[in-house]
Amino acid sequence: MAEPEEPVRHMSSEEFRRAGYAVIDWLADYAERVADLPVMPTTEPGDIRAQLPLSAPLVGESFDAILNDVSDVLVPGLMHWQSPNFFGYFPANTSPPSILGDLLCAGLGVQGMLWQTSPACTELETHVLDWLVDMLGLPARFRSDGLGGGVLQDSASSATLCALLAARERATDYRAREVGTDADLIAYCSEETHSSLEKAAAISGLGRQRLRKIPTDQNSALEVTALRIAIEADIDAGLRPFFVCASVGTTSSLAVDPVAKISEITRVHGMWLHVDAAMAGTATLCPEFRHLNDGLEHADSYCFNPHKWMLTNFDCDCFFVADREPLVRALSVMPEYLRNSVTDRGAAIDYRDWQVPLGRRFRALKLWCVIRSYGVSGLQQLVRNHVALASEFARWIEDDPNFELARPRSLNLVCFRAIGDDARNRALLESLNRSGRLFMSHTLIDGRFTLRLCIGQTYTTRDHVEAAWQAIRQA
Amino acid sequence: MAEPEEPVRHMSSEEFRRAGYAVIDWLADYAERVADLPVMPTTEPGDIRAQLPLSAPLVGESFDAILNDVSDVLVPGLMHWQSPNFFGYFPANTSPPSILGDLLCAGLGVQGMLWQTSPACTELETHVLDWLVDMLGLPARFRSDGLGGGVLQDSASSATLCALLAARERATDYRAREVGTDADLIAYCSEETHSSLEKAAAISGLGRQRLRKIPTDQNSALEVTALRIAIEADIDAGLRPFFVCASVGTTSSLAVDPVAKISEITRVHGMWLHVDAAMAGTATLCPEFRHLNDGLEHADSYCFNPHKWMLTNFDCDCFFVADREPLVRALSVMPEYLRNSVTDRGAAIDYRDWQVPLGRRFRALKLWCVIRSYGVSGLQQLVRNHVALASEFARWIEDDPNFELARPRSLNLVCFRAIGDDARNRALLESLNRSGRLFMSHTLIDGRFTLRLCIGQTYTTRDHVEAAWQAIRQA
Repeated sequence: MAEPEEPVRHMSSEEFRRAGYAVIDWLADYAERVADLPVMPTTEPGDIRAQLPLSAPLVGESFDAILNDVSDVLVPGLMHWQSPNFFGYFPANTSPPSILGDLLCAGLGVQGMLWQTSPACTELETHVLDWLVDMLGLPARFRSDGLGGGVLQDSASSATLCALLAARERATDYRAREVGTDADLIAYCSEETHSSLEKAAAISGLGRQRLRKIPTDQNSALEVTALRIAIEADIDAGLRPFFVCASVGTTSSLAVDPVAKISEITRVHGMWLHVDAAMAGTATLCPEFRHLNDGLEHADSYCFNPHKWMLTNFDCDCFFVADREPLVRALSVMPEYLRNSVTDRGAAIDYRDWQVPLGRRFRALKLWCVIRSYGVSGLQQLVRNHVALASEFARWIEDDPNFELARPRSLNLVCFRAIGDDARNRALLESLNRSGRLFMSHTLIDGRFTLRLCIGQTYTTRDHVEAAWQAIRQA
Repeated sequence: MAEPEEPVRHMSSEEFRRAGYAVIDWLADYAERVADLPVMPTTEPGDIRAQLPLSAPLVGESFDAILNDVSDVLVPGLMHWQSPNFFGYFPANTSPPSILGDLLCAGLGVQGMLWQTSPACTELETHVLDWLVDMLGLPARFRSDGLGGGVLQDSASSATLCALLAARERATDYRAREVGTDADLIAYCSEETHSSLEKAAAISGLGRQRLRKIPTDQNSALEVTALRIAIEADIDAGLRPFFVCASVGTTSSLAVDPVAKISEITRVHGMWLHVDAAMAGTATLCPEFRHLNDGLEHADSYCFNPHKWMLTNFDCDCFFVADREPLVRALSVMPEYLRNSVTDRGAAIDYRDWQVPLGRRFRALKLWCVIRSYGVSGLQQLVRNHVALASEFARWIEDDPNFELARPRSLNLVCFRAIGDDARNRALLESLNRSGRLFMSHTLIDGRFTLRLCIGQTYTTRDHVEAAWQAIRQA
């Protein structure tokens, strides 16, 4: 056994460079061959673990050995989200500058919990989020130079939870964090709102029963009249409506709730309006899609995910508030060991108070790398290209008597069915996904099993979409 | 303007390789020069933003330009957490294999929310967490082959919140997620417990007032008798004690709560016992520190952070539960668009139900890279070396009449003061930190301003500790 005085041996600088180049090369090769890999693996539960040693090695191994196992053991067990043939769920696209930005983040290894613990980490984040307010045409009150501001969260789930907590704090005269959730608070969303809101209701101690799921119309958008009736009924019953979550692009079919009309109701009742534009928000980079922001000027908070459709690898959610005070008051804690003069005099943002965890890494780096590398025009081009491809695919569906659209195409998402019953469509999807040639996922629309083709991967081109259409027609 | 049919231009494979090598070289150079950089920057709020352009570029820029700005604009505004002269807070150490593991994670860009969405991502995580149960000598019931299991969280804050939510679910016969937090539930921690517990009490809707902070003894450890009295008083008042958080290594002074004795109380009352060993847990890699696990066999949950003292870059918290059912029931949601046959038949773990967010990246990769690269013996050596260095530093303090220990050294943390009042010690710390030669942080012990020197950085050697001691004596 080595003496305790002897430091452990790390990779030398030269060894790190060599291993680092090898990983870069491996990733470049992966990006080149991923289109040919089966998108969905045929792995059964336990298959991967069966190939791994039962205990950790006592003595260190070479990085080459590890990289070989990534290729031989792990890659066959992955769903290839970066494949240009991935059309499932929502995308989680990444890009070379994002990967390199994340690499810088890992190597710098700084903590951004307080401004003090790395000023550049906080300031770059604030700065890039202010950029995005302008890039997306969001209301100026989401900028940090007024009462509001933006922050990076890991996911829209966490952003939505934070919105709910801030709303609760404001609705209870800043008592909730001390005495708990009042038993008369009621929140609202639609039947199509993302499941994270139900999760947030459970986590926050509101309880899922105090989240009303309002019916949707023939376009899967929230029914404003039904919302109004539900809120008035709750008020009549002595309850306190305090929060509405509107979706700009639901997960199922990318339906858009009528934010402007909802905001007329929330303003009357002093309720918090949160808008979740997880994937669709990226589209507003383009002026021609700015109508998706209608009504946002009356929203209290807003989020969208560059880790879905803006070339920034997961995790990266942008969360904006019009007034940061309720958020900070809901989440701030100040133990002695984190006190410092900058925080004490309120001279800077401490993002620790804008999120659930305390620690935070330098997430803004990758987003900054992406925006600078592509420029606003490059990101606009990405959106336009994907929407054009989805539009073309939707036309093919419409023109083929064996298929039908379940909803009109919305941006980059096409929801469709083969003519026939649920069983037929389910079998179609399974056979396509098992073929490995592409991956799609499904949803229920009007109670019927529906296929979803979402075009958002970095390297998806017309050829991939056409090949997908060929595969679908043949299956 | 480009036609929408025209795809955006990405870096070519060759360009990615070239930029990737450049970033690897940049990080290798950074690691070599970081010891010479001022650990704490002298930046004033707004200094960094003032150097950044007011709006995002319209047209893309080269990666070289970005990397130059990292060097010229960002680095001077960072606190260098990876400097061997960083002795503040708790460490957030990283290492070459961790950086490369994170790079692989970013490049693969897979989503591990469900087993189905990347089987290898889930299975490697379960596997490595089972490894760690054995590596740390944790109770077997935290392994995944029984009722329990481990999961990676972003931070101990999130793990503690999840523990509180699981405890609440169990204490309410699985009603809390539906109807909200019962108004009679009471949680307990000590006055020295990490602030994240207070945050979790606020988030969960329990309210901070229903978190009792039990006094601590002369070692800053929770007073078991006081805990017993508080719990009995609450029961007599008709309240329902349901949760205790014990610390193995408090943030302030690395004090260790008497877990075994606390568990005698929690077992009598059927309360959930969560143990937070955020930094100190790593020490149990070494058999000689396994006494820190005393009583853990009766804990319901446990967490520690490889991103503090186990060479794995932030974020990486390991969270274990003895029974996964209450956790999963507290956090599960199942919308149609995530349904799949493997989940439906309960054949695999879906980690989405073990955490706050829905999405998750392939975090296990970096941890696996670290464990394999160093081997168990290498990680043990790291711990032994840091503890030996802290021990030596504590002896220097004891032997110098101008200084005193505020507490006996605990593992790799030394809490000490210059003889004199708070003002003198505050001035000492400020002058040292402003010198840039090292960074330490402070706390209050016995109501007095106390300096903390925590030895946990990857490249810290005896020379750095000795230089720190010279600087402290001179200041």
